[in-house]
Amino acid sequence: MKIVVLKFGGTSVGTIKKIKKVADIITEYKNKKYRVIVVSSAMSGVTNELIKKSFEISDNFSSSEHDVLVSSGEQVACSLIAGRLIHKGYRSRSWLSWQVPILTAGSHKNSRINQINKNKIMKYLKEGGIPIITGFQGVNKENRITTIGRGGSDASAIMIAKFFNAERCIIYTDVEGVFTTDPNKLTRAKKIKVISYEEMLEMASLGAKVMQPVSIQDARLNRIDIEVKSSFIKKPGTLITKRSNIINNKIVTGITSTQNDSKVSLIGVKDKPGVAASIFKPLSKNSINVDMVVQNISANGKETDLTFTIKTEDLNKTKKIIQQNKSIKFRKLILKKNVSKISVIGVGMIATPGVTFRMFQALANKKINIQVISTSEIKISVLIDKKNTKKALVALHKEFKLDNRK
Amino acid sequence: MKIVVLKFGGTSVGTIKKIKKVADIITEYKNKKYRVIVVSSAMSGVTNELIKKSFEISDNFSSSEHDVLVSSGEQVACSLIAGRLIHKGYRSRSWLSWQVPILTAGSHKNSRINQINKNKIMKYLKEGGIPIITGFQGVNKENRITTIGRGGSDASAIMIAKFFNAERCIIYTDVEGVFTTDPNKLTRAKKIKVISYEEMLEMASLGAKVMQPVSIQDARLNRIDIEVKSSFIKKPGTLITKRSNIINNKIVTGITSTQNDSKVSLIGVKDKPGVAASIFKPLSKNSINVDMVVQNISANGKETDLTFTIKTEDLNKTKKIIQQNKSIKFRKLILKKNVSKISVIGVGMIATPGVTFRMFQALANKKINIQVISTSEIKISVLIDKKNTKKALVALHKEFKLDNRK
Repeated sequence: MKIVVLKFGGTSVGTIKKIKKVADIITEYKNKKYRVIVVSSAMSGVTNELIKKSFEISDNFSSSEHDVLVSSGEQVACSLIAGRLIHKGYRSRSWLSWQVPILTAGSHKNSRINQINKNKIMKYLKEGGIPIITGFQGVNKENRITTIGRGGSDASAIMIAKFFNAERCIIYTDVEGVFTTDPNKLTRAKKIKVISYEEMLEMASLGAKVMQPVSIQDARLNRIDIEVKSSFIKKPGTLITKRSNIINNKIVTGITSTQNDSKVSLIGVKDKPGVAASIFKPLSKNSINVDMVVQNISANGKETDLTFTIKTEDLNKTKKIIQQNKSIKFRKLILKKNVSKISVIGVGMIATPGVTFRMFQALANKKINIQVISTSEIKISVLIDKKNTKKALVALHKEFKLDNRK
Repeated sequence: MKIVVLKFGGTSVGTIKKIKKVADIITEYKNKKYRVIVVSSAMSGVTNELIKKSFEISDNFSSSEHDVLVSSGEQVACSLIAGRLIHKGYRSRSWLSWQVPILTAGSHKNSRINQINKNKIMKYLKEGGIPIITGFQGVNKENRITTIGRGGSDASAIMIAKFFNAERCIIYTDVEGVFTTDPNKLTRAKKIKVISYEEMLEMASLGAKVMQPVSIQDARLNRIDIEVKSSFIKKPGTLITKRSNIINNKIVTGITSTQNDSKVSLIGVKDKPGVAASIFKPLSKNSINVDMVVQNISANGKETDLTFTIKTEDLNKTKKIIQQNKSIKFRKLILKKNVSKISVIGVGMIATPGVTFRMFQALANKKINIQVISTSEIKISVLIDKKNTKKALVALHKEFKLDNRK
């Protein structure tokens, strides 16, 4: 019998009414003769409420006690889901991470799942039980509760799917799936039926609302099919899978845009080895994330112009670092707020020449100036004036035939 | 180094501010060179809130999931206390019952502590750590969380004190200690400095607000000295200990009164074996608790009058049972609401003749009629008209010199 892992996020179990709905979703799979493993987050709001309490206790609250504190949230949600399934006449029980056990490595607040002991859960599944496992946590080798830093309960679900060799991992959340572009920015955005891990990773700026990139990467490495769908609306979601599973690769699968980017240009930088490093090292040290980088050799061949983008919130800090660091030599510093990065993403562009041209032409037709360009195998990004974002999205969404995507 | 167990009730850890106060109390003991073990309840209100959720999920919520659900409350409180102690520069950590482990037997929602594994906690104490252990819970041999039915976190603290051979178990709560009588009924009630387990058990109607009788009995059986005191006011509390530890036994230690009793009299019952059983069996079957029972042989020697008291809320049910049960034969049934049971309690009365007389005389002087009398080795109870309760308390409190007790 095939195993399916169902993961419910905080909003999906946010109220008693929603937990009852979740129990109904679970029993639908059970009735389809699946072996169902459920992973749940804490009820929405609970974790933040607990963290708030910890800050009131100490502005430097112990990491190990933080993990004990917040892990209680998933415990509550799982017992309520199991209780509802028992009420409905099914065999179910909560499994706390130490009962499975789910073993983690790494530091508190930021551990990773290392090993999952399958024996007890497999026995329980064979007996017809529906295990409800606490997401976002595990126990380390000192037998202390740890929480999973990045990816949270999604990471738990994916690792459980991996260890139990599940047919599929379904991530229930409060959105219907992944869209061709942000539906809040462009109402004609369409839900994507199937997308590759690689495209999903490139669409991180959209995907972050659906799943954290680290979890997508976990799924990719372990070849776990993920379906993202809404626990509120009964509709198919988006399947995230390996490229070879996708029969009809579109040229462009999705388009993303950023909101709060700024552009930094250093004009007249000495063109010699180590110059770029001398600029980026102090930025990295100060946790400033540099995104697009373009360097052109200047006319005289002795100097170069260096342009890169950062988050606007880091602009003042960046300016200070560059101006105060004597080892960075340049003639002129130009800072520009209000730029936006537009990216078209699709594995289909590997096999299709001319995508870059079509993108540039579509923007040119709308008189949108391209300031910086960067490309990867499955993505083309351009930097444009922020005020043109919507116009660019509309034009590109139409150019790559996403408007009438089925 | 001597071990002390400090137990904090729900109101003592009811807010972040109170948890900080609790941490200060703990470090005072630690600084006095005690080895301190802390046991905590959930923050007040939390357990009820969780139980409310479970009722919304199911009117017959699973007992095992109930235990998983509510045990999260102590987990939260313990992590916050430990976090505060770490903030204050002490070595501390939360110990969840499965980490110790505390092993229980019996059914869910109603288990009893069977065994406590001392090794890890002893090692931690020797290293100078302050363990904060979750009260009210344990794990059974299936490795599932259970909660302790009666006595709750008090029972946990007493069993921990027993297994660790603690010098004392201090129960911090929201009252100052045990009083000679209910201070809400009689303002001149005085706090009792020291009281025997047996007296405390007889004073259950007062004691219930301070500690559940089952926990007092646990302490008595295991010879654990208990101090009950307030976590809000820095004052000595009440020491509950064995009789032989009490040097100056007062004749009467405390006086209790009940609020909602009713009297049932069956007149002209056949005086033959098995009659009393035929009356009390159906009451017991219907969970009606019979308290004082008096039977007198009537003048003709063939009939008897039977009188007993019950809670007023059971009066209608009792009437129905007696009238409908054909095997109960009697001439007349007299029901009387609004009676009160007044008890004087004291181990000193074992060695002191005339206590009964003094009690009756004091009531007679106030023209208070005694309806029923029952006595034990260390207690005399009388049933009086409820409207005379206050007058009786005042008279007896004075008669047995509790007004000016030090």
